[in-house]
Amino acid sequence: MFFISAIAPLFPPLLATAEAENAPIVSSGVLLSLVAIYFASKLGAEVSKRLDFPPVLGELVAGVVIGVSALHLVIFPEGGLQATDSAVMSVLQWINGLTPEALNSVFQSQSEVISVLAELGAIVLLFEIGLESDLRQLQAVGTQATIVAFVGVAVPFAVGTVGLMMLFNVAAIPAIFAGAALTATSIGITSKVLSELGRLKSKEGQIIVGAAVIDDVLGIIVLAVVASLAKTGEVDVMNVIYLIVSATAFLLGSILLGSIFNKTFVALVNKLETRGNIIIPAFIFAFFMAFLGNAIHLEAILGAFAAGLVLDETDARNELDELVKPIADLLVPIFFVTVGARADLSVLNPLIPENRAGLAIAVFLIVVAIVGKVATGWAVFGQPGINRLAIGVGMIPRGEVGLVFAGIGSASGVLDKPLEAAIIIMVILTTFLAPPFLRVAFGQSEEPPTGGEPSMEATAVSKT
Amino acid sequence: MFFISAIAPLFPPLLATAEAENAPIVSSGVLLSLVAIYFASKLGAEVSKRLDFPPVLGELVAGVVIGVSALHLVIFPEGGLQATDSAVMSVLQWINGLTPEALNSVFQSQSEVISVLAELGAIVLLFEIGLESDLRQLQAVGTQATIVAFVGVAVPFAVGTVGLMMLFNVAAIPAIFAGAALTATSIGITSKVLSELGRLKSKEGQIIVGAAVIDDVLGIIVLAVVASLAKTGEVDVMNVIYLIVSATAFLLGSILLGSIFNKTFVALVNKLETRGNIIIPAFIFAFFMAFLGNAIHLEAILGAFAAGLVLDETDARNELDELVKPIADLLVPIFFVTVGARADLSVLNPLIPENRAGLAIAVFLIVVAIVGKVATGWAVFGQPGINRLAIGVGMIPRGEVGLVFAGIGSASGVLDKPLEAAIIIMVILTTFLAPPFLRVAFGQSEEPPTGGEPSMEATAVSKT
Repeated sequence: MFFISAIAPLFPPLLATAEAENAPIVSSGVLLSLVAIYFASKLGAEVSKRLDFPPVLGELVAGVVIGVSALHLVIFPEGGLQATDSAVMSVLQWINGLTPEALNSVFQSQSEVISVLAELGAIVLLFEIGLESDLRQLQAVGTQATIVAFVGVAVPFAVGTVGLMMLFNVAAIPAIFAGAALTATSIGITSKVLSELGRLKSKEGQIIVGAAVIDDVLGIIVLAVVASLAKTGEVDVMNVIYLIVSATAFLLGSILLGSIFNKTFVALVNKLETRGNIIIPAFIFAFFMAFLGNAIHLEAILGAFAAGLVLDETDARNELDELVKPIADLLVPIFFVTVGARADLSVLNPLIPENRAGLAIAVFLIVVAIVGKVATGWAVFGQPGINRLAIGVGMIPRGEVGLVFAGIGSASGVLDKPLEAAIIIMVILTTFLAPPFLRVAFGQSEEPPTGGEPSMEATAVSKT
Repeated sequence: MFFISAIAPLFPPLLATAEAENAPIVSSGVLLSLVAIYFASKLGAEVSKRLDFPPVLGELVAGVVIGVSALHLVIFPEGGLQATDSAVMSVLQWINGLTPEALNSVFQSQSEVISVLAELGAIVLLFEIGLESDLRQLQAVGTQATIVAFVGVAVPFAVGTVGLMMLFNVAAIPAIFAGAALTATSIGITSKVLSELGRLKSKEGQIIVGAAVIDDVLGIIVLAVVASLAKTGEVDVMNVIYLIVSATAFLLGSILLGSIFNKTFVALVNKLETRGNIIIPAFIFAFFMAFLGNAIHLEAILGAFAAGLVLDETDARNELDELVKPIADLLVPIFFVTVGARADLSVLNPLIPENRAGLAIAVFLIVVAIVGKVATGWAVFGQPGINRLAIGVGMIPRGEVGLVFAGIGSASGVLDKPLEAAIIIMVILTTFLAPPFLRVAFGQSEEPPTGGEPSMEATAVSKT
């Protein structure tokens, strides 16, 4: 492993020294960025909650406000942005009096750290969603939910992709990526709105939640396939088949292996006597699965999700849920806020003529996102008198997984700015529109008084 | 803030694209490194615990094993090490088939991310120690503990620094740094051993623990001063006075402000309705104080420690303690393991003649570390019949804070490799020797059976 060390001294000692000297400044930049991110996320979440919208929406909007579209507090070195554009870097520059070269190097380093922290946030988010998705509950809602889920993935994906290619001349890979971003319903937002309406236990509610869970799984598989296509840059049918098979095999294989690993994990955890006896083995597993997801050219989050599904089957589940919560609380907002911060919504400013193509794409995506999911209600059969419209409308809100698509697309450079901004706008609007639409679909003008649920980002299906 | 964006396009688009393409590989590297770090830390902690040593010692030794001294699983681009020296990078290279340039760039990026994660680990560690240090308890043990603490800081610092300069011709700054690394007693290790011996509530035990807490505070102030000296590279008496005054003022000021902020914090937390209502405001405060510590040219950990002391005075304390634990469990091991991993113990191999100077320094540091603390027992007055030897021996184990010294010294390039290795060896040996020494000093050959405490890294003084 260590045998080629003689060649390629690409990093002269001078650079290494400069980096060592700048190390505390990089940490300062990371700390200040995190303070800005946390402050924005909490403010956004609380305002959103007060206005009766899901907190995640507020975090996303807060990200847009502190990001490249407005305050420039948290920006990334992409699209020609420099250290001097960043408010955090200006503070560091004012405190430390750095040279432009040193400042740009600090900017580069701290942006990389924040990006990886955001990705760890996405990994922990999907790990938590996996931990809270109950496979047995899915079997109970059965066939109807599965049909709704498949239709709700297939229709928006197909219409979105083909529409973008035919109507807007978008290239195949970004069109497929954007189409894929239309697929996954937000479990968290959907189940929260249903519970607020007092309809979570209705037949419609059960089908919606069940379909949303299956949807999430399908969405993650679609993302893994699409992101992998984006890496190779080609649409090769054999490759698509390979990816779908490997993603499905990876997920099913982990679940099957999980039923064996299950007991080993609990036995191991019970034998450990030092601090972190549950959380460290759980994260070794989650991070290793995430690494494996990356290594077989799928996605890290698919691995984290599979790890969550597996550990959900263990007896350490409830304790683990409690321990993962504060970690998710700390890491997940970094992900949501940076997705918003990276999105340059100025490319959709309707006052500038050349933006109108991007705006038209955004409008198209929103229409497909709504119509494609509303159509799913009519896929339900053998259920006379069921509220088909309510089921379809219940599937509208995109959220966490849609944002993961936008985040990965943006980080990998597949999506151009207008398309990325259009996806973000689509996620924001479907999330805004779902609660009032759902009230109308259920024929309620006033909400019945309910307790509501304290958490939403990954509340999902409650445990049995 | 954004007005100089026209100048200095230092990062051509090509580089930005290459970095975007490498982003998933950087994450893969971080994930794999974290898996290695967590696995090593848990294995080390558990073996250490079984052998009746403190778990932190095992994490440190495990770090040495997976680091530059042995397995090369987790290494950093310093001292001429290349990506090809890293086992994690070899795996990534094997999976992704990168060019040497891309591989080195990934190595550089993932090392920076791991370094910042380790520093966040140190920040969370000191935040937790701050949360668990009870100021009122210190007032109770009073004068004796204060005298023991001051003598225990002054003697090893003075003897260590002067000895290194006179006997070994070490330059002033590294000598002061190494002297400072001799000062801080480990609260965690000391209180754990005392509790195992059933002597925590004895007069000696109370003085030791009280002194260890004061010691930690003094140690952090000394570190802030020394690290700042290291940055400027000069020993200027006025600057030293400024730093001591500013560090003390920062710490006392935060505690005083804390008594006001206290109620605001609880009122704020009670008003928040979304997830992370306690943890996010607490970490905004901790990270902001850490940033402030850096910004006024002290240390981030001093700010985090002050934030912990302040929040310990709030009513949200107990809940916060619980929430910080899993976060510390996840971040702190990264710090301990990377300190071990960075330490190149091969520079102390006695078979190589040129290493003998370094070895002699290590022996000298260990002797000063032990003698300097044992001497403190004789500083106690007005306590006839007290076990002076036990008090002195109880102050021997260095630990967390000593490692923070080594970590910062190594990252900032102040300490050369032999001196850094000597400090690590000193921390390891004092921690190894303290438990048997303390048993002898208390005249016990067998331990009385006690329950022991589940956690050690920051157990410290239990809350009233």
